[in-house]
Amino acid sequence: MPVTPLDATVDVVTLTEDLCNISSVSGDEGALADAIEQVLRSQSHLEVVRDGDALVARTNLGRTSRVVIAGHIDVVPVADNLPVRRVDVNGEASLWGRGTVDMKGGVAVALKLACELSSPNVDITWIFYDHEEVDAALNGLGRLSRNHPELIQADFAVLCEPTAAVIEGGCNGTMRVAVTASGVKAHSARPWMGENAIHGLSEVLARLSVNKPETVSVDGLDYRESLNAVMVSGGIATNVIPDSATLTVNYRFAPSKSLADAEAYLRSFFEGFEVEVTDASAGARPGLDRPAASAFVSAIGVAARPKYGWTDVARFSALGIPAVNYGPGDPNKAHADDESVPIAQIESCYLGLKNWLLN
Amino acid sequence: MPVTPLDATVDVVTLTEDLCNISSVSGDEGALADAIEQVLRSQSHLEVVRDGDALVARTNLGRTSRVVIAGHIDVVPVADNLPVRRVDVNGEASLWGRGTVDMKGGVAVALKLACELSSPNVDITWIFYDHEEVDAALNGLGRLSRNHPELIQADFAVLCEPTAAVIEGGCNGTMRVAVTASGVKAHSARPWMGENAIHGLSEVLARLSVNKPETVSVDGLDYRESLNAVMVSGGIATNVIPDSATLTVNYRFAPSKSLADAEAYLRSFFEGFEVEVTDASAGARPGLDRPAASAFVSAIGVAARPKYGWTDVARFSALGIPAVNYGPGDPNKAHADDESVPIAQIESCYLGLKNWLLN
Repeated sequence: MPVTPLDATVDVVTLTEDLCNISSVSGDEGALADAIEQVLRSQSHLEVVRDGDALVARTNLGRTSRVVIAGHIDVVPVADNLPVRRVDVNGEASLWGRGTVDMKGGVAVALKLACELSSPNVDITWIFYDHEEVDAALNGLGRLSRNHPELIQADFAVLCEPTAAVIEGGCNGTMRVAVTASGVKAHSARPWMGENAIHGLSEVLARLSVNKPETVSVDGLDYRESLNAVMVSGGIATNVIPDSATLTVNYRFAPSKSLADAEAYLRSFFEGFEVEVTDASAGARPGLDRPAASAFVSAIGVAARPKYGWTDVARFSALGIPAVNYGPGDPNKAHADDESVPIAQIESCYLGLKNWLLN
Repeated sequence: MPVTPLDATVDVVTLTEDLCNISSVSGDEGALADAIEQVLRSQSHLEVVRDGDALVARTNLGRTSRVVIAGHIDVVPVADNLPVRRVDVNGEASLWGRGTVDMKGGVAVALKLACELSSPNVDITWIFYDHEEVDAALNGLGRLSRNHPELIQADFAVLCEPTAAVIEGGCNGTMRVAVTASGVKAHSARPWMGENAIHGLSEVLARLSVNKPETVSVDGLDYRESLNAVMVSGGIATNVIPDSATLTVNYRFAPSKSLADAEAYLRSFFEGFEVEVTDASAGARPGLDRPAASAFVSAIGVAARPKYGWTDVARFSALGIPAVNYGPGDPNKAHADDESVPIAQIESCYLGLKNWLLN
């Protein structure tokens, strides 16, 4: 297949459109990765490595500091919302369509700057990766960090995930536990012969309902924690007193806490009930006390705020690299059928990063 | 197909064995109904009507009182527990196998007495019916009461369902409601943007947990009521704050209460939540204040106790006919893979009914 040509010299908004219009649903990123690779390899100031459908392009200028600027190139399935349209949304000129928010706007900003910045004030590692929207085991950034850990090393990382063009630092950790109440089965006509496990969940739900989660300050950002039931199930038939009922609880905890801290907290919170950890990911510290990070915040000129949703910044954090999210688009519009991004936010992120990397 | 011959002159225990060994899983009762029909039609003192696989055999002696004695001839699926074996269970000589408890023992007692009692002290309507173990809409007794209401009329009814050979009067009513708590969906990373419907169930479960159900005296028997969650469900994904969670609650209420009484009680109990009735059956008064019933209790010579499980006695109750359950076998063994009935209970029920109907 010939590579679909991509022209990175057009303006960043048009480039966003062009990137969106090359379909790249997770697992099918090949054509877009080919096009991006062709653009990157044409830049003499970049050293390019491809791993699967992920691309790493690095400057090697001997600067004292190196930053990573990264974004995923895959999107969730198209919902009859391609090709991209230029529309007015709530009075703002916008791009409408799959990927405009999550996250071809951020990819366009990075790709254009990767070409333009032949002499930035820090060395830069540009990363464009695959499989972010699917099973974490497939994640291209995870694969790169296993296959080429040396390529990922940096003092600071910016992930161009949508933040509506403000800086969102780090992210909360997340842990899910199954909390089970046990009982004794009986016919519901003679419930006194058994013990109702669903009624046993009453105490668990009471604890959750009155709980006031903490807000924890980490590296200057306040992380609001939360503890919520997300699923509940119990009962085997409408004439049987159930002997087991299970609540799935999601704990979102500040990035200053380890997975062990989180688990210990949950086991204590649900004391008296069976607790099983089903899923966990540590958070990411924003690292805004690092020089590269504070220079970034100053250059962008907007206050940083905490990120609540778990993102791939945690993969950098796990490698000891502080990371923030910064990109165009309202994260609440990600994956929506009416996904759209204000054009001004794409331009703002482009100028923000350029200003930081040149001055 | 030739009819499998059945000899009702053998002793009642052997007859139970023979009835069990003619397979009659619900929907496949034809061969057994044919065999029973042949036996009944050979008795000159009985007027026999067949409707589907149900049989009604009546004496017409001009007695001042008429009683119904009824039992279903179908069983739940066989679990490699046929043919019947004679075994010792906990020191008692027993019949082991599918149907021994539910309820070929009761059917054998009724069929043998139907043949033997050519001149009972009351007129008797013997009913052997199909499809009791499946969807209530298929129930043979229900069909008979629609197709031949005149054949069912009586002053009192005995249903030979297993009661371990004691008298269990009437039955509690049963109503199921879906109680739903509503909320507002949000990402579980930002739960404060939504409202958690599962947490909303906390109040519902708290009310259930502290509730002390009533015991209500009806016609001299004390009916213990109960109110229990039997199913719970909620949540659509482990990263979403759920906007809906539903508890299925089963209310078992005394037979002195109507369905309207039960529904009004539940709507008041769950005030503030959405309540939908999903299933309801009125109970059955034991009617032990009626002369035919008290004569029955005196003749059997054991104290009556309330029945908690809903049975077809409620179908008689709906026709204005008080009804009790009386038959061999522990109801907790019904449907069990190791279903077995003490032989002494079959003989006791045979003698108990015979004594009542002759003296």
